[in-house]
Amino acid sequence: PRTYRICTLPGDGIGPEIIAEAKKVLAAVGARHDVEFVCTDQLIGGAAIDATTEAGGPVSALPDTTLEAARASDAVLLAAVGGPKWTNTNAGAIRPEQGLLAIRKELGLYLNLRPVRMFRALVGASSLKPELLEGVDLLIVRELTGGLYFGAHEREWGVEGAGGNGARGEFARDTMEYSEYEVERVVRWACQAASRRRGRVCSVDKANVLETSRMWREVAHAVGAEFPEVTIEDMYVDNASMQLVANPAQFDVLVTENTFGDILSDEASMLTGSLGMLASASLGDGVALYEPSHGSAPDIAGRGIANPIAQVLSVELMLRYSLGMDEAADELSAAVTRVLDEGWRTVDIADELTAADRVLGTSAMGDKIVEAL
Amino acid sequence: PRTYRICTLPGDGIGPEIIAEAKKVLAAVGARHDVEFVCTDQLIGGAAIDATTEAGGPVSALPDTTLEAARASDAVLLAAVGGPKWTNTNAGAIRPEQGLLAIRKELGLYLNLRPVRMFRALVGASSLKPELLEGVDLLIVRELTGGLYFGAHEREWGVEGAGGNGARGEFARDTMEYSEYEVERVVRWACQAASRRRGRVCSVDKANVLETSRMWREVAHAVGAEFPEVTIEDMYVDNASMQLVANPAQFDVLVTENTFGDILSDEASMLTGSLGMLASASLGDGVALYEPSHGSAPDIAGRGIANPIAQVLSVELMLRYSLGMDEAADELSAAVTRVLDEGWRTVDIADELTAADRVLGTSAMGDKIVEAL
Ligand SMILES: CC(C)[C@H](C(=O)O)[C@@H](O)C(=O)O
Ligand SMILES: CC(C)[C@H](C(=O)O)[C@@H](O)C(=O)O
Repeated sequence: PRTYRICTLPGDGIGPEIIAEAKKVLAAVGARHDVEFVCTDQLIGGAAIDATTEAGGPVSALPDTTLEAARASDAVLLAAVGGPKWTNTNAGAIRPEQGLLAIRKELGLYLNLRPVRMFRALVGASSLKPELLEGVDLLIVRELTGGLYFGAHEREWGVEGAGGNGARGEFARDTMEYSEYEVERVVRWACQAASRRRGRVCSVDKANVLETSRMWREVAHAVGAEFPEVTIEDMYVDNASMQLVANPAQFDVLVTENTFGDILSDEASMLTGSLGMLASASLGDGVALYEPSHGSAPDIAGRGIANPIAQVLSVELMLRYSLGMDEAADELSAAVTRVLDEGWRTVDIADELTAADRVLGTSAMGDKIVEAL
Repeated sequence: PRTYRICTLPGDGIGPEIIAEAKKVLAAVGARHDVEFVCTDQLIGGAAIDATTEAGGPVSALPDTTLEAARASDAVLLAAVGGPKWTNTNAGAIRPEQGLLAIRKELGLYLNLRPVRMFRALVGASSLKPELLEGVDLLIVRELTGGLYFGAHEREWGVEGAGGNGARGEFARDTMEYSEYEVERVVRWACQAASRRRGRVCSVDKANVLETSRMWREVAHAVGAEFPEVTIEDMYVDNASMQLVANPAQFDVLVTENTFGDILSDEASMLTGSLGMLASASLGDGVALYEPSHGSAPDIAGRGIANPIAQVLSVELMLRYSLGMDEAADELSAAVTRVLDEGWRTVDIADELTAADRVLGTSAMGDKIVEAL
C-alpha cells in the first residue's frame, strides 16, 4: 500500500485525547483506501517546554527534532497547545503558543483556512436565529505569518510616545507589517478558491485608518483583476464583525490579515454553535499543518469528554489539501454528518433535546465516526 | 435659565438629518428643565473637506474654527462622517475619518464608552436567540487615542521585512504603541464604572502574542488591585469575539485597546438588532464628544428614513456625563423605551410583526420621542 508519513503533535490539555481519535479515523480510512498512514508523535507547546526543561535545556516550545520530523512528513496534524501551567508574562519566558507561531513560520504556512460549514443537525446549537443560518457556507482565509503577530515586539522605558498622550513610564510596541508579496499570495489563493465556489471574495481591512490596510486593498484589487469570474468587495473589519452576526449567509470567501482573521474566525465559529466543530488548514509552499480551531481546553483535559470532531475534520482537510484523497475526505465528512444526524453528541454540542444516552465521550464519538465510515 | 453651549457637528450622509432630531429633543429637554441649549453647527469630515477645498484650501477634515468652537463648548455632539465621495486611497489624500481621529486626539478623548443595553421591545430584532439576551447589560470601554490607529503609518519600497517572508516590493507598516499611563487611566475608569455596576471587569487583550497586551494585562491587574470590590478577569480577544455571541450576559464592563474595542463594539451592537440604537461617549479630561455608534450611511442619506435613536441616546449620554443632568437623561431614556414599547419603529428596526403604519421616518420618530417626554 501507498504510505504517508504524518507528523502528529498532541500538544497540551485535551490534545492527546482528541488526536488519538484522529489516528483511529486515519487507520479506518487507510484500510478502506489501501493506504498506510504512519503517525509519529512529536513534542510541541507546553509538553515540549516541560520535556526540554527536564532534559536540562535549552528550553523550547518547538524542539529541532519536531521541526525536522515535520519537514520530513507528508502532513502535520496538530491538536492544541497552551494552558495555565505555562502562563508566565515575564519578558523572557517561553510560552507554548510560541511553538505554534514558530512552526507556522518555519514551515512557511502563510495561509490559514477555516471553512465554516453548518451541520443541519446542529442548527439548534448556534447562538444565532435559525433563519440567519440558511445558506451559510463560508470560507475564511487568514494571512498567518505576517502582520502584528510577527512584527517586532518591544518594551522600553521613559520614551515619549509617537502619540504624545501625556505618556510616561513603560512603553510597549508591536509592529504590523506587510509586504505586497505577502498580501498577493493570500488574496490570490482566496480568489482561486472563490472561482471554484460562488465567485465572491470579501476582503476585510481597516483602510480608513491603517497603511497596511490601504496597501492590502490596492493589492487585493490588482490580484482580483486577474480573476474576471470573481468579484472582490471590500469591508471594514468593524463592519465585518457585525455582518458575520447580522447576515452570515452573504459571505462566500472572506480574506483578511492575521489579527483580523484571528478575531473574525473565532467569532464565525459561533455560527456552528461550538468551536468543537471547526477545523483549520495552514498551508504554504511545502508541508501543510492541520488542526482544530479550538484550544487545549485545560479545564476539561483528562476527563474523556472533549469533542474530537474538529480534530477529525482536520483529518478531512488533510486528506483533501495535502494527500489528494478527495474521495476519502468526502466519505469522512459524510460520516460525521451521519453521526450527527443520528443524534449522537458530545457534551459541548448537546442541548435540551438530546437524549442522555446519545451523549458520548471522546473515544466513543471517535468509534461512532469510524463505524459510520 | 442656565445656558449650555453645544458644538453640533452634522458631518456627512445622514448626519444632518439625525442631528436635527437631536436638536428637537434638546429643545424639549431644555423647556422641561429650564435650561437653554445653544447649538452651533460646525464643519467636520467630508463636509469640511468640501468647504475648505471650495474656499481655496488648506484642505482639512477638521478646520481650526471647528476645533476652537469645540473647545469653547460644554459638549460636542457629532453625527457621522465619511462616504464614497471621499474614498481615495492616495497616500496624501485627506479622508473624512481623519477629522474624527483628529478631534479625538486634539480634545484628548482617550476613552470611548458604548453601553449595550437591550430594549425589551426590540429583542425580536436581534440576530441572537432571545434566551441569550436575557440579562444583557454591557458597558464597553475602548481606549481611543492610542494603539494602532495613532501609531506611525508608513510605506516603503524594497526593504526586507522583519519577518523575512520572501518579502519584496512595497512594504506598509502600522505601529501599535501603548504607554503604561494610557492603559492605567482607561482601566481605572472601567473599574470605577464597574464598582457602581455589577463589579466585574473583563480586560481583553492578546497577551499570548503581543507585547502591548502583556503590558496591558500587568497594568490592568495593578489598577484592579486598587478596587477590592471589583474583580478583573482577562480574556483573549479572539475568545472575547466568540463569547460576545455565545454568552453576552456574562459581561459587565469590558475594557480593551483601540482596535479590539472598535471590532468588538460593532459586533456587540448586533445584540440590540441594529447599530441604529447605540450611542457612544468619548471622554477625556476636558470637553467630551457624543455620537451614534453607526456611520454616515450614505446609501440612505437624504431619504428621511434614517433612525435617529442612536443620536438621541447620544444626547442622553451627554446629559449624564457632561452636564450632570441625570434626571433629564433618565427621562429621555424612558421616553425612547416608551416609544419603542408602543410599537413605533424606523425601517431598520421594523420586522414582520410591525404594523405598516407604525414605521416612521426620521423626523416623525424625533417628534414621537419629544411627545413621549
Ligand atoms: C494561540 C495563538 C497564537 C493562535 C493565534 O492567534 O494565531 C490561536 O489563537 C489561533 O488562532 O490559532
Ligand atoms: C471611522 C473610524 C476611524 C472609527 C474608528 O474605527 O475609530 C469608527 O469606526 C468608530 O468606531 O468610531
